[in-house]
Amino acid sequence: MIAGIIGAAGYAGAELVRILSKHPKIDVLRISSTSYEGKTIADIYPNFFGVTDITLENSKTLIAGSDVVFAALPHGVGEVFAAECFESEIPYIDMSADFRFDYDEETYKAWYGKNYRFPELHKKSVYGLPELNRQRIKAAAKDGGGVIIANPGCYPTGASLAAFPALSLGIYGNGTIIVDSASGITGGGREPARAYHFPECSDSMTPYKVGSHRHTPEISRNFSFMEGAAEPRPVIFTPHLAPMNRGILSTLYIPLADTWKCRPDSHTAPRPPSNEINEKTSRIHRLYKEFYKDERFTRILPPGIFPATGRVRFSNFCDISVCIDQNGENLVVVSAIDNMVKGAAGQAVQNMNIVFGFEEDCGLNTLPALF
Amino acid sequence: MIAGIIGAAGYAGAELVRILSKHPKIDVLRISSTSYEGKTIADIYPNFFGVTDITLENSKTLIAGSDVVFAALPHGVGEVFAAECFESEIPYIDMSADFRFDYDEETYKAWYGKNYRFPELHKKSVYGLPELNRQRIKAAAKDGGGVIIANPGCYPTGASLAAFPALSLGIYGNGTIIVDSASGITGGGREPARAYHFPECSDSMTPYKVGSHRHTPEISRNFSFMEGAAEPRPVIFTPHLAPMNRGILSTLYIPLADTWKCRPDSHTAPRPPSNEINEKTSRIHRLYKEFYKDERFTRILPPGIFPATGRVRFSNFCDISVCIDQNGENLVVVSAIDNMVKGAAGQAVQNMNIVFGFEEDCGLNTLPALF
Amino acid sequence: MIAGIIGAAGYAGAELVRILSKHPKIDVLRISSTSYEGKTIADIYPNFFGVTDITLENSKTLIAGSDVVFAALPHGVGEVFAAECFESEIPYIDMSADFRFDYDEETYKAWYGKNYRFPELHKKSVYGLPELNRQRIKAAAKDGGGVIIANPGCYPTGASLAAFPALSLGIYGNGTIIVDSASGITGGGREPARAYHFPECSDSMTPYKVGSHRHTPEISRNFSFMEGAAEPRPVIFTPHLAPMNRGILSTLYIPLADTWKCRPDSHTAPRPPSNEINEKTSRIHRLYKEFYKDERFTRILPPGIFPATGRVRFSNFCDISVCIDQNGENLVVVSAIDNMVKGAAGQAVQNMNIVFGFEEDCGLNTLPALF
Amino acid sequence: MIAGIIGAAGYAGAELVRILSKHPKIDVLRISSTSYEGKTIADIYPNFFGVTDITLENSKTLIAGSDVVFAALPHGVGEVFAAECFESEIPYIDMSADFRFDYDEETYKAWYGKNYRFPELHKKSVYGLPELNRQRIKAAAKDGGGVIIANPGCYPTGASLAAFPALSLGIYGNGTIIVDSASGITGGGREPARAYHFPECSDSMTPYKVGSHRHTPEISRNFSFMEGAAEPRPVIFTPHLAPMNRGILSTLYIPLADTWKCRPDSHTAPRPPSNEINEKTSRIHRLYKEFYKDERFTRILPPGIFPATGRVRFSNFCDISVCIDQNGENLVVVSAIDNMVKGAAGQAVQNMNIVFGFEEDCGLNTLPALF
Repeated sequence: MIAGIIGAAGYAGAELVRILSKHPKIDVLRISSTSYEGKTIADIYPNFFGVTDITLENSKTLIAGSDVVFAALPHGVGEVFAAECFESEIPYIDMSADFRFDYDEETYKAWYGKNYRFPELHKKSVYGLPELNRQRIKAAAKDGGGVIIANPGCYPTGASLAAFPALSLGIYGNGTIIVDSASGITGGGREPARAYHFPECSDSMTPYKVGSHRHTPEISRNFSFMEGAAEPRPVIFTPHLAPMNRGILSTLYIPLADTWKCRPDSHTAPRPPSNEINEKTSRIHRLYKEFYKDERFTRILPPGIFPATGRVRFSNFCDISVCIDQNGENLVVVSAIDNMVKGAAGQAVQNMNIVFGFEEDCGLNTLPALF
Repeated sequence: MIAGIIGAAGYAGAELVRILSKHPKIDVLRISSTSYEGKTIADIYPNFFGVTDITLENSKTLIAGSDVVFAALPHGVGEVFAAECFESEIPYIDMSADFRFDYDEETYKAWYGKNYRFPELHKKSVYGLPELNRQRIKAAAKDGGGVIIANPGCYPTGASLAAFPALSLGIYGNGTIIVDSASGITGGGREPARAYHFPECSDSMTPYKVGSHRHTPEISRNFSFMEGAAEPRPVIFTPHLAPMNRGILSTLYIPLADTWKCRPDSHTAPRPPSNEINEKTSRIHRLYKEFYKDERFTRILPPGIFPATGRVRFSNFCDISVCIDQNGENLVVVSAIDNMVKGAAGQAVQNMNIVFGFEEDCGLNTLPALF
Repeated sequence: MIAGIIGAAGYAGAELVRILSKHPKIDVLRISSTSYEGKTIADIYPNFFGVTDITLENSKTLIAGSDVVFAALPHGVGEVFAAECFESEIPYIDMSADFRFDYDEETYKAWYGKNYRFPELHKKSVYGLPELNRQRIKAAAKDGGGVIIANPGCYPTGASLAAFPALSLGIYGNGTIIVDSASGITGGGREPARAYHFPECSDSMTPYKVGSHRHTPEISRNFSFMEGAAEPRPVIFTPHLAPMNRGILSTLYIPLADTWKCRPDSHTAPRPPSNEINEKTSRIHRLYKEFYKDERFTRILPPGIFPATGRVRFSNFCDISVCIDQNGENLVVVSAIDNMVKGAAGQAVQNMNIVFGFEEDCGLNTLPALF
Repeated sequence: MIAGIIGAAGYAGAELVRILSKHPKIDVLRISSTSYEGKTIADIYPNFFGVTDITLENSKTLIAGSDVVFAALPHGVGEVFAAECFESEIPYIDMSADFRFDYDEETYKAWYGKNYRFPELHKKSVYGLPELNRQRIKAAAKDGGGVIIANPGCYPTGASLAAFPALSLGIYGNGTIIVDSASGITGGGREPARAYHFPECSDSMTPYKVGSHRHTPEISRNFSFMEGAAEPRPVIFTPHLAPMNRGILSTLYIPLADTWKCRPDSHTAPRPPSNEINEKTSRIHRLYKEFYKDERFTRILPPGIFPATGRVRFSNFCDISVCIDQNGENLVVVSAIDNMVKGAAGQAVQNMNIVFGFEEDCGLNTLPALF
């Protein structure tokens, strides 16, 4: 089987090269780039030297010769490739935000500043968060005709997997859910810029786009879908930049439903978690484990162990911990993913595996690195 | 004037050595340590070699010969030194949690597991967050008799300075305030441990003590005090460990009072901040600037600039930004401090300056490092 | 096939677990540890949670049930296991220094402070640097009877692969070869210690054991062997600690043979490399490529590209560049390895592959990570 | 006194702002920049916000109004400013390489590709490494007329201070001196570039410009001068990039004079340092201490303690250790400096102090940071 990657010179594209060149079902890998056509991937990424020395070609020829196409392009430029693949019935897995909002063009336009070029196409695309949407992905693949998968944003992936059980099992009551996330610098992509210049970002933490990051509507929409709610969920999302290469750590504050609320031990000042809190935390922990018991890539950590981005590096895992806060009114869920794998290229390959009926962890069963 | 530091071998003690040895009012610096008595500070910290080569002595002799005593000891072991200083009317600035809870022994015991040894002393101690409590610190100093200053915790300092204007000006409505913080590894102290072993914490983010960190009651009490409320404020506090040396970045989610709430631009899905949101953000920004206009160590950043721990390194500054979230219901305040300076040793020196009537930034006017 | 790892709780052992649990020829993996017997590997390394959840057993039972045994033990404690395996004809791959000096007990004793317990065993062991010693490794395996492979030290691996062509092709003349290396902090192992405490080693470079590191005699012996010299080569080796997790970068200064020496462009002051220098550099570059053309794990980088430890991370590669210095008298060779892979666990697996006649890169063909 | 900085927007310029704005003899600080004229320094470096909020002006007006001018410009563009200052008799301290080669225009041209525009000026300039050249700096200042100080390169500073005693006391014999250095990323300056993009350089070590770095002739010339030799010294210099912000660690391999050579303990293989080696190391240690006994910024570390860049951060210190290698033929000297302070801005201020007859550590007596 031949896989093609449009826009392979960026970080997400190169991570796809890393994963797909060892994927047991991929016989040939083709890659394209507008800026680097004619160069080899090892010219750009010397780590590939002598190993995966394929040449970047033109996107047109690439599509024609591929059985599946991945697009790792900036937002707003890939629709034409999607249309071409759709017509040729070549599954198209898009890593940009272009197809993440289905027919809600208004929201897309409000945040990304562009109109849809082929509105019809968006109605046919499927949002590719497998744990949430697996049946729809499979259905689209079986339907015959083209398949367009919108690979989720990196932050929405970590946030959604953390919240899914709480939202769908009624652990969440109502009110605003807060998502506070920290991302490694690879999230900023390959192009050098002041914010990612080593002396400016090393040994420092900073938030960015506070109260106005584009992933907010995607997170809100996912939460609504998970809850089965007609309306979008009220969400606050704050991204931070942490001085590390890979990883997103997300800490979610989810207001508990009344039945899950606990009384704190003291009315005059905060106290360490009460027995009731610890007990209900255990119950929620079990519910989370049960909820995800058939998923290969979500790991509900044992009580007392919290996720660390360093423990999911290079893997497609999403590690999750749950804990009711000492005040008894909120569930604090923490998740860790590798932003380049489960947050981008790994999840795209997971989507390909589903579309083609491969084992879902095919090519994705690498162990998380130790350090 | 002679300053003494009990427990100078730990990180907070050594940072005090760094600051006090350049303080224009301190003529002589004396230091003590139980474990390293007889050694020089440069034996422990070779960066001091040839510069500040003083010898660690016994705590008893140190107190007798000092005009002011700083204690950088573990929780629960310093009361006896406090009592001794109090009797001898030597101002005592305590960096442990022992005196942070005044007469609320129950809360202290619940979180730190120990009873007060000299309960009377706690009623006389003053909580040393100058921006909040300056008059009480001054009053205690003028009173005659002993002075015991409880230097605040590192997290409570960053969180409290971020929330103070919102709480005291009625920008905060009611409901739980969430404090999500990330600290550099120096926060863990000097003793090697697995969590701070370079290969385990480098290039990784992780939370710890989720829902149960000891700084929670201190933050809650401060918030209550700032608001002028009789009851403690409901607070959730989540600390994280970030792969950097110095700094605490705190992101606070503060529910707005009704008059400050804004309507979002859309009822069907989140939208970028509306004009109303941007305008009210500007007003709150001005209120914050006005509120802190006489403070030397709080910097309200210009709109669009967010705090970075890397920009307050080695300074006593607390950088703050404010922003109403796109949902229009919460104020997101971000603060950055150097955990070793404003979060520990610098603030202790600031307290000393107040107690002795020196300029408040005496010895503390270093510029933040560039990188 | 069943592989056993004695001492699996340390970093080298755990890296073996990571590699061997995905090795296509290993059906069962057994692990032991004195300190952690009865625990699972995921108790110690939570990154393995839910993936490789095997239990640490006793070393005795482990040996009895294994087809090959890896020992990742401190120096001086493993001989008894080696003896047991040798008698039972179970190939034993030792990652300590114990068997690296063959019958030269005096040198071992001088640097490691211990005598051999089973001197006979050392005469039968083989030094497992495959690029240097492949035939002897194969021969030992074919011989029948036990096989003991001494896996090389991390520094000697990077240094030896860098120097091998220069020494065996007569590019080296005579005089002292200098090896200046920088290692990531994982080289210090899993036990927390001040030197590896994040705040002490982060954002800092420092040498250690200058002029007296134990890897010096191993490097010297290898150089002598490569050159075919009867005497050990004069060597200076200086290790440094760099603030990174994985990797060893070694810069070697190799005095050129007379025929390779170049005249500099100026006698009055240094000049940029002359044409003669650039030309001879190209010739040596080609000789290096030719020399290693059948090796899978050595990559001679294109002229102008220098090795970076970040480009061999998680791979068994040793990247090498060559360059005659502007003074025309020395060859500067730089090599980069992942200290945990080619410098330890990966090379051990490579040795196992040779011993058992597997493809040499079996289980080792992971691509180097991008970042 | 009014100090002016031409080119204050770059890292070296901004570090000068940091130091000079706290210098007790500087009353007014003026800064200029071609690219940022009209902006404040805090617009570019938010760490200065609210503290040192001066505006970048035009270089012409700056010179006219200054008592001393620092130039932090790229190589080859500052001669015209130097000429102007020289005529106006305003001391000019140049941080570029333009004046580092005196009248040796050929060497400058060979490495920097440009001719001198005002050759006469170069004969009047003084190389500003105070420990080497203090008398000439003082003499130039006393002479009357203009003063041009060529502030040394960062690498030559660390290398020269490490070698000076060995060269001038005859500890060095003859043969090539090797300088192997690792620099923090700030050495690459403020402009974002791929090599300094966090994901590309973090957690990785790499050399650059092997055998051809421009600092080679400056190092060689200094060594020759120190030795009192008529000819330049044969030197090999290899710079590396280490994943840290500040600092240069240099490891020098200096061939010993015959009287200093030691016999190793064994002729058959390397041995740990012999008694003779340890004893001569002690003697050289004492000679180094004696040699530098009147210098404020060189610290000869106690035996067994090696320099770490992390221990000189933010200080003007150069830490040095000496050690004869186990082979008995070479002295290994290691030095650590903060590349932005002793390697650039701090040394420039030290030069200003000398020119104006201030205490040499005036404004430079900050303690090295702990972490």
